[in-house]
Amino acid sequence: MIRLILSDVDGTITHRDRRIDVAAIEAIRKAIGRGILVSLVSGNVIPVMYGLEVFIGLNAPAFAENGGCYIMKEHVEAFFSKEKPEEFLRHIERITSAYGIFSNAWRLTSMGFGMREDDEERVREEAKKFGVTVTNSGYSWHILNPGQDKAFAFRKLMEMYSLEKDEILVIGDSENDMPMFREAVHSACVGTNEVLMSMAETVTSGKNSSGFVEALGKYGIV
Amino acid sequence: MIRLILSDVDGTITHRDRRIDVAAIEAIRKAIGRGILVSLVSGNVIPVMYGLEVFIGLNAPAFAENGGCYIMKEHVEAFFSKEKPEEFLRHIERITSAYGIFSNAWRLTSMGFGMREDDEERVREEAKKFGVTVTNSGYSWHILNPGQDKAFAFRKLMEMYSLEKDEILVIGDSENDMPMFREAVHSACVGTNEVLMSMAETVTSGKNSSGFVEALGKYGIV
Ligand SMILES: [Ca+2]
Ligand SMILES: [Ca+2]
Ligand SMILES: [Ca+2]
Ligand SMILES: [Ca+2]
Ligand SMILES: [Ca+2]
Repeated sequence: MIRLILSDVDGTITHRDRRIDVAAIEAIRKAIGRGILVSLVSGNVIPVMYGLEVFIGLNAPAFAENGGCYIMKEHVEAFFSKEKPEEFLRHIERITSAYGIFSNAWRLTSMGFGMREDDEERVREEAKKFGVTVTNSGYSWHILNPGQDKAFAFRKLMEMYSLEKDEILVIGDSENDMPMFREAVHSACVGTNEVLMSMAETVTSGKNSSGFVEALGKYGIV
Repeated sequence: MIRLILSDVDGTITHRDRRIDVAAIEAIRKAIGRGILVSLVSGNVIPVMYGLEVFIGLNAPAFAENGGCYIMKEHVEAFFSKEKPEEFLRHIERITSAYGIFSNAWRLTSMGFGMREDDEERVREEAKKFGVTVTNSGYSWHILNPGQDKAFAFRKLMEMYSLEKDEILVIGDSENDMPMFREAVHSACVGTNEVLMSMAETVTSGKNSSGFVEALGKYGIV
């Protein structure tokens, strides 16, 4: 029985263009109304997650920076530091097309960046040497500390709410959701990333937010 | 003819408890779909307004800190400084029950605070002496620079989009909306603040976000 939903944000409760789907908001509120915990986990920053927490009316932490920190009722908890990610960003800015993104001003535990596609392999190699992780949310690239990922958020929620893995439904669309899909018993892929689709328990026919709403239907939540 | 809607956020496109109303989001999207510019102006901070801009899909700037700054497509413009508001906050923290609020960490041009009700008169007197303004959003108190208010946002939008005052519809619920209601030809009050109600062209029968949707109907926008 699902007691907690852990969902990605961009491309999962939003349309592809990042506009939030009102049907996803309503589905989340119905789930909360039935006593299910709803937590979000995104590559986005704490103040944006704070906005989502307040405007949606969440009842569980909203994790930012791919699980590196969370906010709940104006309380922020950070589990990692941005020092190493910042160093690595400066390094790849020097040697590749990589550039930091504007929301980095609000980051506590990671860095975000963009780059030309042909630099991907080189940046991944450099990350390995440097001892950081790079992952793609489908909207931007992220530099994370070792152990910092959405699986960390999954395990943190298990601990906070004394949950078993099979009591959590994980929903996402992109590469950066793979760590939590690896931990999950129940997972729904709403995107088209082939690796994530192969890891998922359910691949929705609708994509993005319509897939999110479909998944909540399939798991008997709404 | 209304070419731009300038709306408050908390208590206006949200329910009283600050959860965003999906009907207000849909009404905004319909207005945008008809070519109307939709701008938000709130006491809240830039990254929260950035979240709203992206998740709603706004087509005009989202003003933060009661008009002191705005964000539009990842570009932030600040028109005031937080130096004087910070000084004043430290002053009233020393001599009254006032305390800074957690979102101050993300403020650029103002400070937010809470206090016991019986300190209101004293804080207003001190503000006058100090040369800052204090105003209430219905959710928290705000310390603003001289000239910093939602009327500033109204005039900035007139300039940016070459609008006449009668082409703008202003919507709000609280004391901090009074400056833009003073500038406006067309205004709808969706709250119960008696002064704002007396200033408004329209007082909606529905309150908060249901009043917002009602106002857009009354003005022939949706
Ligand atoms: Ca995503
Ligand atoms: Ca470079
Ligand atoms: Ca308000
Ligand atoms: Ca004090
Ligand atoms: Ca007027």
